[in-house]
Amino acid sequence: MAQSSKIYGKQSILFENPPYVLGCGSIAGKKEAEGPLGSYFDLTNDDPLFSKKTWEEAESELQRLACDMALKKAGLESKEIRYLFGGDLLGQLIATSFGIISLEIPMFGVYGACSTMGESLSLAAMAIDGGFAEKTMAVTSSHFAGAEKQFRFPLEYGSQRPYSTTWTVTGSGATILGKTKTKNALDIVVKGITTGKVVDYGVKDSMNMGACMAPAAADVIYANLKDLDRKPEYYDRIITGDLGVIGKEITIDILREKGYDITEQYMDCGIEIFNPEEQDTHSGGSGCGCSAITLNGYVMEMLRRKEWNRVLFIPTGALLSPTSYNEGHSVPGIAHGVILETV
Amino acid sequence: MAQSSKIYGKQSILFENPPYVLGCGSIAGKKEAEGPLGSYFDLTNDDPLFSKKTWEEAESELQRLACDMALKKAGLESKEIRYLFGGDLLGQLIATSFGIISLEIPMFGVYGACSTMGESLSLAAMAIDGGFAEKTMAVTSSHFAGAEKQFRFPLEYGSQRPYSTTWTVTGSGATILGKTKTKNALDIVVKGITTGKVVDYGVKDSMNMGACMAPAAADVIYANLKDLDRKPEYYDRIITGDLGVIGKEITIDILREKGYDITEQYMDCGIEIFNPEEQDTHSGGSGCGCSAITLNGYVMEMLRRKEWNRVLFIPTGALLSPTSYNEGHSVPGIAHGVILETV
Repeated sequence: MAQSSKIYGKQSILFENPPYVLGCGSIAGKKEAEGPLGSYFDLTNDDPLFSKKTWEEAESELQRLACDMALKKAGLESKEIRYLFGGDLLGQLIATSFGIISLEIPMFGVYGACSTMGESLSLAAMAIDGGFAEKTMAVTSSHFAGAEKQFRFPLEYGSQRPYSTTWTVTGSGATILGKTKTKNALDIVVKGITTGKVVDYGVKDSMNMGACMAPAAADVIYANLKDLDRKPEYYDRIITGDLGVIGKEITIDILREKGYDITEQYMDCGIEIFNPEEQDTHSGGSGCGCSAITLNGYVMEMLRRKEWNRVLFIPTGALLSPTSYNEGHSVPGIAHGVILETV
Repeated sequence: MAQSSKIYGKQSILFENPPYVLGCGSIAGKKEAEGPLGSYFDLTNDDPLFSKKTWEEAESELQRLACDMALKKAGLESKEIRYLFGGDLLGQLIATSFGIISLEIPMFGVYGACSTMGESLSLAAMAIDGGFAEKTMAVTSSHFAGAEKQFRFPLEYGSQRPYSTTWTVTGSGATILGKTKTKNALDIVVKGITTGKVVDYGVKDSMNMGACMAPAAADVIYANLKDLDRKPEYYDRIITGDLGVIGKEITIDILREKGYDITEQYMDCGIEIFNPEEQDTHSGGSGCGCSAITLNGYVMEMLRRKEWNRVLFIPTGALLSPTSYNEGHSVPGIAHGVILETV
């Protein structure tokens, strides 16, 4: 039997009816608001607790606000969304579970570490193109203090951060996709996806996530270009999630060895989101929220203005577990590619 | 625009081309091997560490073995599988990340707590019916010692277990689905799915997971019957994941109040898998592995023999986080329904 016409190569899909972006929301913390992309976010708050009592509750609130913002901008109610694909960095996805409960949308919890915006968007688009839904939503988040507490040390310990570390972004982004164009819809579609594998280059440094994730990012970018028989020039931007300055160099180097020069198109959300000299963020921003708010704030706006028309968005996840790390294991990476184009 | 013909009601799908079960694998520990379903599992091991050094490595090994077994029984190689949908109970899904890495299959990590077998199977079926893949795989696992360490207390503490607690199953189950029937395929298809919402009845007892999850299970069973305009008698079995004896009663009661009597069809994997009097397992088995090995061992075999022809499988997840629980929050539940039928 012939393969479906949607399937390209080993890892890529081009949708038959590319889903429209009906709305998107981006909520960010104070540090993100003060960074170079601050003006692109829908809502920012100087209070890192977002009026809640714990870091975890604050992150749930971020997700609730991002979903509400996306619904509001799309002119939709939550009952019109058939599936929600969401996740976060916290154990058992509690930011998502508690954040989206009031929306009462059938929900698929996903975990792709910081690649979650790409993973949830991939599945949200597949659900529509596959004929399972008219409208779906993808959401993710991260919170600096919650992430430090879970993955490294609680802030109160005052531990020193090497220059290779990244700074977990406090923020949440949500995207609503639809089969048909609505009144408020943007002239942007999810044209296709390239799904990553778990890639392990044996890096064991939890303070150097960029190096852990770069091979996974390079793998997906390579698969995308190869599967779809494209050159990097096809895209106006090739945007990774949170590789930071070290991971960026590694990604470019790996792809150069494979015959692709992406330096002209390359951008990393983690590098764009902060001003490292002034903001003391070392290697750059990271976390699910980093790529989520950069996508739903800045990237979508650039596409809306048609300053860019074709973007390959590849958020990257380090499958870092304090348990496996303490037991001497490496930190494998994963990445999920999403092609966004203007129409 | 008319809705797709696959969409039923608010939460259900009937596939246009229901994917075939091409193969399945079930791997279990010693206690599970000694239970009433012991003879149905493909492989069991008296060593709880499965020859590894840590509980987490043992759980990864369980997933590797389950995937290998499913591939072997299906007569397939891993490179023939386009997508793997997998997850587990451990933080950052490390059992899955490390367990499936050698398969090199593009991977979507999912988290639905103990509902993961239903969630991963739902997405694996959607990927095929949606035209995105010829063959997909769903996998999940749990390990008693790893789960106790992460969610309650390390075994060495010797903490006492109330009678309402369940016993986390050590095991992993994997299912391979395909668009077309292969030589080794079973005469079983995934006919449809009903996707759950996060449901919170405010239960705060982490030692009584059945009560936390029962409302989510009842919600999905109700949605399935309502969306598809069916009576419980349509199914030979309605099978929840790990509600145990307390959760079972609550589920039956909630559905009776809504006008459905499911007592004739009802079965819970957590109740079937152990003999509580002899095995000291209190309220029953639990964990992602509980429903995963019961499905891929026992339930698939009953369908293969056509002793049952229509099954509604609804694994249930308690979104329990030690962090949110210690911060005073309730334990919300989620459930994912999958309709399996013989052909």
